[in-house]
Amino acid sequence: MSLNANQLHFLRTLFPDGDCLTAPEEMLVFETDASRLNGAPLAVVRPQIESQIVELLRWAHAECIPLYPRARATNVVGLCVPERPGIVISTLKMNRIIDVSADDFVAVVEPGVVTGDLQKHVEAMGLFYPPDPASFGISTIGGNVATCAGGMRAVKYGVTREWVLGCRVVLPGGRVIECGGRNHKNVVGLDLTRLMVGSEGTLGVMSSIMLKLMPKPEATASLMAGFATLEEAMLAVGRVFRAGVLPTALEFMGPEVLDCLALLVPVPWPHGTGAGCVRAVLLFRIDGSGAAMPADLERLRRALNDTTQGAPMWLEQGVGSAEEEPLWEIRRLINPATYYVAPNKISDDVTVPRGSLLPALTGIRDIAARHEVPILTFGHVGDGNIHVNIMHNAADAEERSRAVEAKLAVMELILSLGGTLSGEHGVGLTKAPYVHRQLGEDERAVMHDIKAVFDPNGIMNPGKAF
Amino acid sequence: MSLNANQLHFLRTLFPDGDCLTAPEEMLVFETDASRLNGAPLAVVRPQIESQIVELLRWAHAECIPLYPRARATNVVGLCVPERPGIVISTLKMNRIIDVSADDFVAVVEPGVVTGDLQKHVEAMGLFYPPDPASFGISTIGGNVATCAGGMRAVKYGVTREWVLGCRVVLPGGRVIECGGRNHKNVVGLDLTRLMVGSEGTLGVMSSIMLKLMPKPEATASLMAGFATLEEAMLAVGRVFRAGVLPTALEFMGPEVLDCLALLVPVPWPHGTGAGCVRAVLLFRIDGSGAAMPADLERLRRALNDTTQGAPMWLEQGVGSAEEEPLWEIRRLINPATYYVAPNKISDDVTVPRGSLLPALTGIRDIAARHEVPILTFGHVGDGNIHVNIMHNAADAEERSRAVEAKLAVMELILSLGGTLSGEHGVGLTKAPYVHRQLGEDERAVMHDIKAVFDPNGIMNPGKAF
Repeated sequence: MSLNANQLHFLRTLFPDGDCLTAPEEMLVFETDASRLNGAPLAVVRPQIESQIVELLRWAHAECIPLYPRARATNVVGLCVPERPGIVISTLKMNRIIDVSADDFVAVVEPGVVTGDLQKHVEAMGLFYPPDPASFGISTIGGNVATCAGGMRAVKYGVTREWVLGCRVVLPGGRVIECGGRNHKNVVGLDLTRLMVGSEGTLGVMSSIMLKLMPKPEATASLMAGFATLEEAMLAVGRVFRAGVLPTALEFMGPEVLDCLALLVPVPWPHGTGAGCVRAVLLFRIDGSGAAMPADLERLRRALNDTTQGAPMWLEQGVGSAEEEPLWEIRRLINPATYYVAPNKISDDVTVPRGSLLPALTGIRDIAARHEVPILTFGHVGDGNIHVNIMHNAADAEERSRAVEAKLAVMELILSLGGTLSGEHGVGLTKAPYVHRQLGEDERAVMHDIKAVFDPNGIMNPGKAF
Repeated sequence: MSLNANQLHFLRTLFPDGDCLTAPEEMLVFETDASRLNGAPLAVVRPQIESQIVELLRWAHAECIPLYPRARATNVVGLCVPERPGIVISTLKMNRIIDVSADDFVAVVEPGVVTGDLQKHVEAMGLFYPPDPASFGISTIGGNVATCAGGMRAVKYGVTREWVLGCRVVLPGGRVIECGGRNHKNVVGLDLTRLMVGSEGTLGVMSSIMLKLMPKPEATASLMAGFATLEEAMLAVGRVFRAGVLPTALEFMGPEVLDCLALLVPVPWPHGTGAGCVRAVLLFRIDGSGAAMPADLERLRRALNDTTQGAPMWLEQGVGSAEEEPLWEIRRLINPATYYVAPNKISDDVTVPRGSLLPALTGIRDIAARHEVPILTFGHVGDGNIHVNIMHNAADAEERSRAVEAKLAVMELILSLGGTLSGEHGVGLTKAPYVHRQLGEDERAVMHDIKAVFDPNGIMNPGKAF
């Protein structure tokens, strides 16, 4: 399939001055996303104002041409990939911060605003936008909302969903609906706002988004704790929450992650496999008023120090970002370090109820042993969200197939524990074949019927999500 | 319309042993809710297990008989009233706490569980369920979820929506869908869970609900501050948030409320209208670790004490529930005190963006003066949520009509400020005629089409919500 002369004329008229791309070399980058899967767009358009999106969606609906909205395309599940012939809509030219109100605690932004840029902007005003997906420095609010992005601070502050007050959405056919609004409380009508959050571009195109802000926490502190075993680390997680501590962030690194980090940098904890060596690490951040930090940190330490369940054998802490930064820098090195193990990875972000973390993590280790592939586990254990990296050499077909089998085994394990296939990455293309194992026929039928309300011709990001 | 012998036989067989009520005197209480509006149910059924709901919804869908789910019916907007002939479903016999997990931080409950009972139950385990609508001691989780109930602690912890992880829903026709699950993070599929939250019984009947819990905050403290004017109180609200304080709760009482409270009890602040008298009160609660309370309270006092904008002329504070309770008892006396002003009230719970509180409150005072009816304003100003009580004597037709006109004027004012007709009560019957002033035609069309996905014959709580 390709666009005919009339169609090309329509697009070039609606998107003048280089905002309609059709040359293969210009479209190359729009074929893929961080999943590295590939599609083949018929054209790429870059709207600058909502009315262009309206005209485009009126036309594409009538012509039944698939549309693929995308911003920075940082997602790893193929969510932006134009798998079927269609038109990619880049929202990157709609990147204005329209309004930030320190009275309303509301930000209104276009979808192409980079999350980290908004955060800097509002923090300079004493305000705070909590969601912090790992990609926050390069991903956008539009993408974060479309995927309901999570992040480290979700333990205390929840995910993107909790911070979206409203959005304007252009629907196929050209209708524009206004979901929610600037009010922090609003119960008039069905909650279309949260239906948009996490809908993975399957319902419409957001042209602006209203976010809830909060006062910036006065102070933060971090604590890194090393344990002799995975089991002891997970018991400590339970202890901390039961002691009444709600950390801002609670990250975990399993034994295999510690080993590969040690290949990249000198790690601060006693490294190795002998007695006295750290085999699992927890990294906490807490926040609150400055006056509370020393006492709150002490309270966290007390909760960790239970000798009957295995106290941490190594601890390091920092108050304030200068002291905390080195601890978090280690966490950020996981991704580059993984490639010391093998050149390729299958990456997953399964989630289990928090109390099932230990069986999930030990089960994943068993799967690694059984399929003879290294599996690294780390992530946001405060929400039960485990990042699983199945390392392998994809050039070795037999090894690749063991890695894929291991992925399926992890999936089965997680579902058997009442978990979910994705805590924050979304479904996109890569998990779409497995969605039916988690969602029943009736649930999926309802989702498809709701999609048909918004998009009767099925042009929005087809083949994705559910 | 009445039920024929076959229909009655079906209901009595499905709901044996007194769980199908048809005698007028038995059904009396099910005709109304806290709105005092009336309907006329054809029958009242009391399911004890999900399978009874499934059979009922299969049958009612085929017979096109309206259904009205209800629990304690504490809502004030006529949401439970069986306005058209149909069957009331009382969920009060489905009131089991199925599971509370201190490891998963999850509670699974049936819809008829009283919110306050669940809160006591989980707090005894060191856990916490934050949403606290004023009715929490008598209203149910099912009702709270159906209306997305708010409450005082919403400033810090958000509304019911933020605490619902999943639910099982029986749809007309008898399908049962499982929305969400026990995981704190989950982005697989469209967010059906939050679509159910606040849907006012228009989509299906929830048979169980999964809630997210958090660790119970270690300590609380409260502070009540009296100001010379409404304006000074609202400036102080802005100052507190800008100082980086996020209170758990932030309540407001306007001058008219202070006057009627003084009729009921000896109020602790300097009361009257002369110099040095308090004309507006703010009531704060903060929470956190015990060690932080004194310093956090001091920080709040510092933020309040700005002499250029009008510092509080009177302050009282308490640390811990025994000391705090007397301050909150005053807040709870507002409702009984209002009846010193007039025998009837039109009650509203409009919400504006937080920065528009002052124009909203002064505008409402102007409306009271113009229509010559006393209007009391108080409520959750931390979320911009204002409770408006238009006091009048309904027996006086002319006075009643002035009160109704004042209500419409308040509505217009709030919408002109970008506000919403309801922050927490919902739309129900009483606000349904005005929904089109807030929601556009396209938004309502989408909502109706979504409803049709769940309920194609329109049997679920017809005539309500949107």
